[in-house]
Amino acid sequence: MTFRAGVVGAAGFAGIEAVRILLGHPDLELVCATSDANAGTRIDEMYPALRGFTDLEFVKNSEAPLDSLDVAFLAVPHTAAMNVAPSLIGSGVVVIDLSADFRLKDPDTYAKWYSTSHTEVALLEKAAFGLPEVKALEIRAAADRYAAAEAVLVACAGCYPTATSLAAAPTIFANLVSEDLLVVADAISGVTGAGKKANERTHFCFANEDLEAYGVMTHRHTPEIEQILGIPGRLVFTPHLAPLNRGLLSTVTLPIDAGIAQDIATTEDFVHLYKDFYKSSPFVHVLESGKQPRTASVVGTNNAQIGLTYDSERGVLVAVCAIDNLGKGAAGQAVQCANIVFGLSQSAGLSNIAEPI
Amino acid sequence: MTFRAGVVGAAGFAGIEAVRILLGHPDLELVCATSDANAGTRIDEMYPALRGFTDLEFVKNSEAPLDSLDVAFLAVPHTAAMNVAPSLIGSGVVVIDLSADFRLKDPDTYAKWYSTSHTEVALLEKAAFGLPEVKALEIRAAADRYAAAEAVLVACAGCYPTATSLAAAPTIFANLVSEDLLVVADAISGVTGAGKKANERTHFCFANEDLEAYGVMTHRHTPEIEQILGIPGRLVFTPHLAPLNRGLLSTVTLPIDAGIAQDIATTEDFVHLYKDFYKSSPFVHVLESGKQPRTASVVGTNNAQIGLTYDSERGVLVAVCAIDNLGKGAAGQAVQCANIVFGLSQSAGLSNIAEPI
Amino acid sequence: MTFRAGVVGAAGFAGIEAVRILLGHPDLELVCATSDANAGTRIDEMYPALRGFTDLEFVKNSEAPLDSLDVAFLAVPHTAAMNVAPSLIGSGVVVIDLSADFRLKDPDTYAKWYSTSHTEVALLEKAAFGLPEVKALEIRAAADRYAAAEAVLVACAGCYPTATSLAAAPTIFANLVSEDLLVVADAISGVTGAGKKANERTHFCFANEDLEAYGVMTHRHTPEIEQILGIPGRLVFTPHLAPLNRGLLSTVTLPIDAGIAQDIATTEDFVHLYKDFYKSSPFVHVLESGKQPRTASVVGTNNAQIGLTYDSERGVLVAVCAIDNLGKGAAGQAVQCANIVFGLSQSAGLSNIAEPI
Amino acid sequence: MTFRAGVVGAAGFAGIEAVRILLGHPDLELVCATSDANAGTRIDEMYPALRGFTDLEFVKNSEAPLDSLDVAFLAVPHTAAMNVAPSLIGSGVVVIDLSADFRLKDPDTYAKWYSTSHTEVALLEKAAFGLPEVKALEIRAAADRYAAAEAVLVACAGCYPTATSLAAAPTIFANLVSEDLLVVADAISGVTGAGKKANERTHFCFANEDLEAYGVMTHRHTPEIEQILGIPGRLVFTPHLAPLNRGLLSTVTLPIDAGIAQDIATTEDFVHLYKDFYKSSPFVHVLESGKQPRTASVVGTNNAQIGLTYDSERGVLVAVCAIDNLGKGAAGQAVQCANIVFGLSQSAGLSNIAEPI
Repeated sequence: MTFRAGVVGAAGFAGIEAVRILLGHPDLELVCATSDANAGTRIDEMYPALRGFTDLEFVKNSEAPLDSLDVAFLAVPHTAAMNVAPSLIGSGVVVIDLSADFRLKDPDTYAKWYSTSHTEVALLEKAAFGLPEVKALEIRAAADRYAAAEAVLVACAGCYPTATSLAAAPTIFANLVSEDLLVVADAISGVTGAGKKANERTHFCFANEDLEAYGVMTHRHTPEIEQILGIPGRLVFTPHLAPLNRGLLSTVTLPIDAGIAQDIATTEDFVHLYKDFYKSSPFVHVLESGKQPRTASVVGTNNAQIGLTYDSERGVLVAVCAIDNLGKGAAGQAVQCANIVFGLSQSAGLSNIAEPI
Repeated sequence: MTFRAGVVGAAGFAGIEAVRILLGHPDLELVCATSDANAGTRIDEMYPALRGFTDLEFVKNSEAPLDSLDVAFLAVPHTAAMNVAPSLIGSGVVVIDLSADFRLKDPDTYAKWYSTSHTEVALLEKAAFGLPEVKALEIRAAADRYAAAEAVLVACAGCYPTATSLAAAPTIFANLVSEDLLVVADAISGVTGAGKKANERTHFCFANEDLEAYGVMTHRHTPEIEQILGIPGRLVFTPHLAPLNRGLLSTVTLPIDAGIAQDIATTEDFVHLYKDFYKSSPFVHVLESGKQPRTASVVGTNNAQIGLTYDSERGVLVAVCAIDNLGKGAAGQAVQCANIVFGLSQSAGLSNIAEPI
Repeated sequence: MTFRAGVVGAAGFAGIEAVRILLGHPDLELVCATSDANAGTRIDEMYPALRGFTDLEFVKNSEAPLDSLDVAFLAVPHTAAMNVAPSLIGSGVVVIDLSADFRLKDPDTYAKWYSTSHTEVALLEKAAFGLPEVKALEIRAAADRYAAAEAVLVACAGCYPTATSLAAAPTIFANLVSEDLLVVADAISGVTGAGKKANERTHFCFANEDLEAYGVMTHRHTPEIEQILGIPGRLVFTPHLAPLNRGLLSTVTLPIDAGIAQDIATTEDFVHLYKDFYKSSPFVHVLESGKQPRTASVVGTNNAQIGLTYDSERGVLVAVCAIDNLGKGAAGQAVQCANIVFGLSQSAGLSNIAEPI
Repeated sequence: MTFRAGVVGAAGFAGIEAVRILLGHPDLELVCATSDANAGTRIDEMYPALRGFTDLEFVKNSEAPLDSLDVAFLAVPHTAAMNVAPSLIGSGVVVIDLSADFRLKDPDTYAKWYSTSHTEVALLEKAAFGLPEVKALEIRAAADRYAAAEAVLVACAGCYPTATSLAAAPTIFANLVSEDLLVVADAISGVTGAGKKANERTHFCFANEDLEAYGVMTHRHTPEIEQILGIPGRLVFTPHLAPLNRGLLSTVTLPIDAGIAQDIATTEDFVHLYKDFYKSSPFVHVLESGKQPRTASVVGTNNAQIGLTYDSERGVLVAVCAIDNLGKGAAGQAVQCANIVFGLSQSAGLSNIAEPI
């Protein structure tokens, strides 16, 4: 059986990556790709990498057969997702939202960080958080609702929250982090993370040969990570921009509670803990002690690689996670969530291998 | 039916790309990957992008079950291929050679440009040239020999010859180029084209933020291109290095014989000519008039894109072809040739889509 | 004595590089930097590299003390320079124009390639072409006019014309190029050459890891190069874009007339010819036979490096020239021209050394 | 008066940058540049950016007139500096050491982190630490010793320690950081930081389009930073590699002691504190609240830019410092230290401006 899929907001970076994945997916068929700004343009005219793989044109949202889809991937900015989701759900379409609109459980937190009030609080309560390796129960519940023909809305985790949570969750969920101490996550992203909009920040000549921090103490992924990990007000998150297209590395410094962590005294112990935590997660690769992940190893895929280093003298674990911000950090994860909801193999359509060099 | 495949010299850039493609190939099964220098090392230890996709280790040539293979891909330097090919062929293994050893039909030309004499002249005569879109008869003959259980040796075209010939062949084969005039090909390659050897030239800090020409009037691909196109002594070929990993662009300036080319007077006419020439070639995309190919559109794939511009005032066609030097320029083409020899779909294992951004 | 200098259109890439050079110039003092779009913004707010070196703000053209300047550098788009030059010249200001408005001697050629008619034909006739190493007499004449208190307008060569002409002039001016044969120049530029405007072409994620040709047979530098070299209708010029900030490499293929070139039969002969041609040009470095120039060696400077290779079998010289498109290709050359006009040392303010790595 | 300067180990990245600076220095004259491995090679042959600026060749250490120098810059690996320093000092040469040999005050700490015992403990005690903005008294004492004709040995701070200490010192020296809490510094460096040695790590194709952490909890700059800041055992330092040539960004998360920091409750307060701390430091630019430093703004210079963000809810200051790892992080700082020792202007030879784009 093939499921009819559409991408709403397909001309952006996350959207077009979803299009790419769907064009190679054995069970999901790309039926439409919407972009109000680019309606009438062939997809492969705008993105010539797709030449030979699709004859579709971008269509306007209002003219796309969205209601007849089995699944809609929303790759639109926040607030736009809130606007389009209700009618889709009303039509029985599974909604996989890549935006931030349904990630934060608390509408007040949403209002605070996104500077706008949440208009779909009822839907918010039904949304499953889409980070299967960390929130397995939520995506499982979504699959159950689909099986029961109930409404399904999955709010996929953001790129930084995905990498940061994959790096930190096994340790925090095992209660190894000293309470009341801060967790520091310094993350670095390629420029696709800044989006498709051409401006001074994304101009080649400004981003190239440069490093900078941005959104310091104000980045909207902060409350999302705190929610996932259950550490409200305790995360110091600083994202950085580096001159590459794809790839996101999150380096998380976790102060370990020595009193509790008696059995976990070496890097190898943490490697064991993480391998066990992710034993059912085919996309997450925990590296052996002494190895560090490279973003280049996961670009173009839904994979994540994690490296761990425990320093007993300072009592800290440094956990580093590498993902493709458009893959596991966006479109790959979205397709993975759809796979789970529909009862397909998690890795259907997601088995491509990163370029080794 | 699955064919048993091996990669000889698998730790180099072309070799590991062949490994990557074979790991995702539905009909060819990677049985072994050799590297004398790295024997005993897991492939995914050296190339962590492959983590989760293979448990193989590199093995020594002498310890690999090469004679039992259906097909061996030789990704070794020139002269090394000459050494290993005869015994493989003697064992009935289809040999797909990515090196330069069997490309030049004339052993004297080989001796001149490669500064060493050819030791397998008899084999040389049997070798089919591997550039299916331009030398269809040769690869077809190789397929026939395989069907007849005869020895098969395919000498895959080099990276620059592939792009340059794809850009020039339809025009030259239609006898539109003024006799006795020079053809100028200025090509640009990413740094993977310089190979895996770490030296000052491939050091990040020397290659980055730099452009340079190299091998001017001495590059060994010169006689290969002249042979393919049948323009001995008439090519001026200048390769350049630019700061990117993968991608090769060849810009070919072809002086058109106005006397002959009466029916071909516009860019559109050339577009028509090229589309017709490549109508059976699924990997070659001829762009409409006014469009230029981008290497980014073909990276990671076996695709080629060609842009054409005819200037009637100057009487020249500028034909530009973009390929991935490790894809259509090396490992992709090798697998394509194997597919044809074995009677598989040309695009088996070669259907992945380049990252749109 | 210090000369009062201003930069008109200072917020663009060529303009801000002129600002940088002037801030370190011992004899020219930066008095004002105009930008209508950014008036009121501190220069170092927009370009933080200049922090600590100037407290100036961008000012509106109409509010800048342009008439009181000794020299104005026009770094505005074509047509804008035509509008502002007459009044400056009327006020006795030396005008160094970095735009294309006064480069082409023939207003019809200007009209054809720039799709607009020339409105200052009288001024056009007085303009000196600013490429001192190739058009020494013109800039010398401008210096004489300045000494005679006459109007001075210098039309600086474009970036591609500079590199291409430096590579080709000694050979063409020695009448070594076969008449009626085409000269092919394939050039590659960093992305600063595409200007400051943020669009899909200059977006980091589109320009990075990509190579492409652009403006094929239509680039406006074509007639300029043909004019400089005196080869009307005989240039095939193809510019390319590569992923680096600064740097421009022009590879020129020159078909040598064997009948004439009896004394010039080896690469060394050409090296000798070029060294002699440029013996009074401190910024041009002719490399020994076997060496090729690297753009990285000239970035940030007004220097040019030239590599030469003669192939007697094919009868062609391949001359490659590397410059910084914003240095010798724009702002550096403009300051060099001003130095000459004012009777200063050519290299005043232009003595910085490129980063060796 | 001109001082005679030499660079020992001049062929490496820090060494050649010292050469570049010295070639443009008004008061220091480059007399010799040593490199045992490259003796007899012209400097501009190896580094063609220097073509036209020097005719010197690299010479062997043993053949260089080191004893007659006024100042020797040691750009050799650790342990090599210990070997060469004593005789130079014995000859009355001012030694500015860019290596790690004389940075750590405690020889046991040196032995622990560098896995070799310190052989010049007596000299160690005399060494002044070279980070003038943070350790003003030490470099001042060195200047006094020079004035008194006593031996002078300056141990310049490493690249990461420079950026990290500039970011953290004003806060820590004001006793604002909670005792017993960890300070987290996540830093990112361009690839010149990995040195000139060509290996898999520095190969363009491995470093490009990649991000990775390295030396996690084992990097030798850890004890150096802890020594500078006086926070032994309290630093968690994780360096990262990103695909650019030059530039280093250190992001330091400082847990502020709310009890003490009553007067310092906003980002503006910290900006004020830092501006005051660096008021006599011409190379350090403290940015206004809301601004973040870009490494591109300081490349090629001795400048540093610092951005500050205080989060009162979490009680942390995030201080980010950008430098050029080869400039302020190595050769620039070394020349700055020499300037101070000789009583020259701090910025003599160090006044070049970074390319604005």
